Amino acid sequence: MQQKLEHTIAVLARTPAALDGLLRGLPEAWTLQNEGEKTMSAFDVVGHLIHADRTNWIPRAKWILQFGETRAFEPFSRWGHLRETKGKSLEELLDEFARERSESLRELRALNLQPADLDRRGGHPALGVATLSELLAAWAVHDLTHLHQISRVMAHQYREAVGPWSVYLGVLKCDGHSSPR
Amino acid sequence: MQQKLEHTIAVLARTPAALDGLLRGLPEAWTLQNEGEKTMSAFDVVGHLIHADRTNWIPRAKWILQFGETRAFEPFSRWGHLRETKGKSLEELLDEFARERSESLRELRALNLQPADLDRRGGHPALGVATLSELLAAWAVHDLTHLHQISRVMAHQYREAVGPWSVYLGVLKCDGHSSPR
Repeated sequence: MQQKLEHTIAVLARTPAALDGLLRGLPEAWTLQNEGEKTMSAFDVVGHLIHADRTNWIPRAKWILQFGETRAFEPFSRWGHLRETKGKSLEELLDEFARERSESLRELRALNLQPADLDRRGGHPALGVATLSELLAAWAVHDLTHLHQISRVMAHQYREAVGPWSVYLGVLKCDGHSSPR
Repeated sequence: MQQKLEHTIAVLARTPAALDGLLRGLPEAWTLQNEGEKTMSAFDVVGHLIHADRTNWIPRAKWILQFGETRAFEPFSRWGHLRETKGKSLEELLDEFARERSESLRELRALNLQPADLDRRGGHPALGVATLSELLAAWAVHDLTHLHQISRVMAHQYREAVGPWSVYLGVLKCDGHSSPR
């Protein structure tokens, strides 16, 4: 389907509650473990989502509206959250993500985007030309990519524990195709 | 890590809230679409999880405690939920899943499993010998497999909409390795 703003917002608005339901109060054996060097734990992912809302999605939407293709977006740092998450608990990050997302969606609605706005083109520093519509769709799928990742990272911790069932459990066959991780 | 009963229960107890946060009230364009013929929508997955709690996990745990390896489990039908979900709304299924899971965990705790029980062996009709510990770990990872699947099925609906961002969005590269789907 094409990007529909209300459908995109419907997903974006639910991610904080989905992650809260999944992660709040879970033992750290699930939330702080990752898949190996330079991979993210569930804790890291929540920090990354906060950082992306702050520095990536709405800022880039405004950038397109202001500059079109004349100036490329600022690059986004995938590990830019590390300084902000240090010393915080997962529960603090979940609260922070809920507030941040709520504020992002308030800003998105305030832009009062019309169909012609959604067709406006911007310049991604690595991907080239992209429309505002594609940016907003990518924001929702970025949430889903990280939900997909968290379920995989958690499942990885029980890779041995499931014994023969591993052949039926698709998540254990997922190689983490995020590129870059 | 090894299966730890309290860690397993911690995941199992959170899945209903995670799915509720993700799916309740979401447009049907997200929840009723699948990835093509003989694949599951988010709606199907919730039905499948209810059906698996009713007919698979706790029944098999009790089966191991009663029969050990002397009698293989009854086979589980992956599409056995179809009759039960017909005519229901996703919201009804989410409520039903929360009740069913709560009841499953009540039954699990009532078994008062000791370490020696977790080492007891049962016979899977296709996988051969498996322990009670492995069964319970597989139950939690089965939840995670389906969360992983729902995020993928939803993302699939926006495959075109994200334009050039598809190269960065790992979930779009996931081929649905569940075996069988």
